[in-house]
Amino acid sequence: MVSVYGMKSSGNCYKVQLLLEQLQRPYRWVETDSAHGETRTPEFLAKNANGKVPLLELDDGRLLSESNAILNFLADGTPYLPADPWLRAQVLQWMFFEQYSHEPYIAVARFICLWLPPDHARRADLPRLAERGAQALAVMDKHLEGREFFVGDEYSIADTALFAYTHCAADGGFDLAAYPAVCAWLARVQAQPRFVRLQS
Amino acid sequence: MVSVYGMKSSGNCYKVQLLLEQLQRPYRWVETDSAHGETRTPEFLAKNANGKVPLLELDDGRLLSESNAILNFLADGTPYLPADPWLRAQVLQWMFFEQYSHEPYIAVARFICLWLPPDHARRADLPRLAERGAQALAVMDKHLEGREFFVGDEYSIADTALFAYTHCAADGGFDLAAYPAVCAWLARVQAQPRFVRLQS
Repeated sequence: MVSVYGMKSSGNCYKVQLLLEQLQRPYRWVETDSAHGETRTPEFLAKNANGKVPLLELDDGRLLSESNAILNFLADGTPYLPADPWLRAQVLQWMFFEQYSHEPYIAVARFICLWLPPDHARRADLPRLAERGAQALAVMDKHLEGREFFVGDEYSIADTALFAYTHCAADGGFDLAAYPAVCAWLARVQAQPRFVRLQS
Repeated sequence: MVSVYGMKSSGNCYKVQLLLEQLQRPYRWVETDSAHGETRTPEFLAKNANGKVPLLELDDGRLLSESNAILNFLADGTPYLPADPWLRAQVLQWMFFEQYSHEPYIAVARFICLWLPPDHARRADLPRLAERGAQALAVMDKHLEGREFFVGDEYSIADTALFAYTHCAADGGFDLAAYPAVCAWLARVQAQPRFVRLQS
């Protein structure tokens, strides 16, 4: 059975939880609180020198980090990742978009708003995060006009990855009502079999 | 023949150029200056709503963005991307590391140092970029101790992706001499057949 080192309130960790639930694949969850130093202990750094969760551990001890790499590995050969090379390329395109143009703004704004004190210096970053995050949501909204899911006609791990921090973007001050195609897509993701909610 | 919209001095675009040269695959390069608004024209935004290069265009008009998604697509079925699922997962792990924990610090520091005027406000970001970039280089150095390449025993697109901004990290103020395993790996990448240099 695989083990997942993760923090349940983290969207990046939730991606892995959601996919494992949808795959109905048994797993052991090792709650690891990155907000309180648990990814910076010598024991954890020996497993992932980059000091981040989620981290997947196979039963033979092999380790894999990076949420979207974990999703690709677990979904390979299942309906959640198409076999066609062009569709797979587009899945990766949206997953790299998520990690470069979306998560650093939308997830970081959520982190600052939910977990840092009101007088914290990083709140000065919020206007820039709001601007860049809105750009990402606008790109998504335009792409989803007339489409059911991000790639092809089926739900895939591209949707899983983008759902994780989009559905809770309001936590970081984003108004999702401005993105109707995104809102309709969020509802379609939430209607997937064996969907589970983010714990927060 | 595929077309690549890219800016030759960009490390993200250079990744695609380097792989295409190594694959000996013919391509058309469409120089697109993102520093002077050429990725923000209506014509370009119609091809990539996210307004970024590199962008791959197939001869039937299909479009793919995100440098590392392009590398995966072009390398699939070649010696530059292993067929084994576990090795492929590790390639992706390092490519997501590159885009999340490496490029936003090392490439951005290079951009600020090379292209922004000495009195630009963004120079205030340099100490934070230096700290985070050094963390990424330390993770790479530790991983490369006793290894030839990032994944398995062979050069792969994980190396291509990480080479792009690592080899020119000094442009952003990083001292690579502090990372001897990284320096030895850079020399191994530069010794690959059909290696071409970044134009700057």
